[in-house]
Amino acid sequence: MEDIEKILNFVVEIEKLKDIYRKTKPVGLERFENSAEHSWHVCLTALMLKDYANDEVDINRVVKMLLIHDLGEFDAGDTIVYAGQTDEDKAKEAAGTSRLLNMLPDGMADEFLELWHEFEAGETADSRFAKAIDRVPPLLHNIHGDGHSWKTHGVTKEKVFSVNQRISLGSKELWSVLRNKLEDAVNAGILK
Amino acid sequence: MEDIEKILNFVVEIEKLKDIYRKTKPVGLERFENSAEHSWHVCLTALMLKDYANDEVDINRVVKMLLIHDLGEFDAGDTIVYAGQTDEDKAKEAAGTSRLLNMLPDGMADEFLELWHEFEAGETADSRFAKAIDRVPPLLHNIHGDGHSWKTHGVTKEKVFSVNQRISLGSKELWSVLRNKLEDAVNAGILK
Repeated sequence: MEDIEKILNFVVEIEKLKDIYRKTKPVGLERFENSAEHSWHVCLTALMLKDYANDEVDINRVVKMLLIHDLGEFDAGDTIVYAGQTDEDKAKEAAGTSRLLNMLPDGMADEFLELWHEFEAGETADSRFAKAIDRVPPLLHNIHGDGHSWKTHGVTKEKVFSVNQRISLGSKELWSVLRNKLEDAVNAGILK
Repeated sequence: MEDIEKILNFVVEIEKLKDIYRKTKPVGLERFENSAEHSWHVCLTALMLKDYANDEVDINRVVKMLLIHDLGEFDAGDTIVYAGQTDEDKAKEAAGTSRLLNMLPDGMADEFLELWHEFEAGETADSRFAKAIDRVPPLLHNIHGDGHSWKTHGVTKEKVFSVNQRISLGSKELWSVLRNKLEDAVNAGILK
């Protein structure tokens, strides 16, 4: 098969991400968000917030990471951040990502698989920032959406603060603004 | 208002792109595609096909262009490529893009507005390639989806070939593969 054909098959296969539904609804919409539109949203969010990363980041690498960070969900499904992922979930997601990227022509998968593992590990400046950004939209969805997924999943304010303070590992300034918004949500009674 | 607050307001505002529906359905799905998930899809498609651009491209600029290329659709709506855009449509889309980007802190909008206009004009290597990539998913949706939007909108094979041969301005090799696929679609009777 021609290399371009292989890439086009990959392009068709990843459409499945448009049918993987997450746990929050975009602001103003009555339906759940899918992982493809989420991926676009976090790329643009990262681009706009890059100057607030704690450490200097290579924003182009961050965007690449975020473009592919959810590819493994075809095979593993989306997990709410508050549930935590089991080792089995993580293994399924890694295998799913690898299966997809290996549809690409020889030699192309490696760069992206490395980026995916770097994102998952969250130990570099780029991945810490990418992971911080990945946490932003679900918070905004809840803050602007009457805490819908916090309520549905019985997520307490203690849990929301403790899990999301990891945003500060990528951007202290961003976490500071979001923490204030979460405190407002507590005061407004939508986060308990 | 703090700059981060302004960016977060922008991040919420652009969620509306998740509710702008296009004219084709993703492969395997029974619903129309929205412009947010489309934007993700073309970014990843560009990244994987970058080596097939006719001229050397700065793939990071191409991805940025594609991340923002549909922002103006909030105010203007999506137009099928075969209909062509009126000057009024174009002006609305430009105004919509400008309105959104001007929600960002002072000085941030300019870079992205310039990229958006560069994309629209399609006269540079980066924008020619980005525009070529933007045309790929609707073709794949039709090819793998019984020509659904061609049939609904009465688009003839002559129109499909003449409009999409502009893909060759960004990538001759890509157009060559897609032209073969379109010829197969004609032979299979789904493009008439």
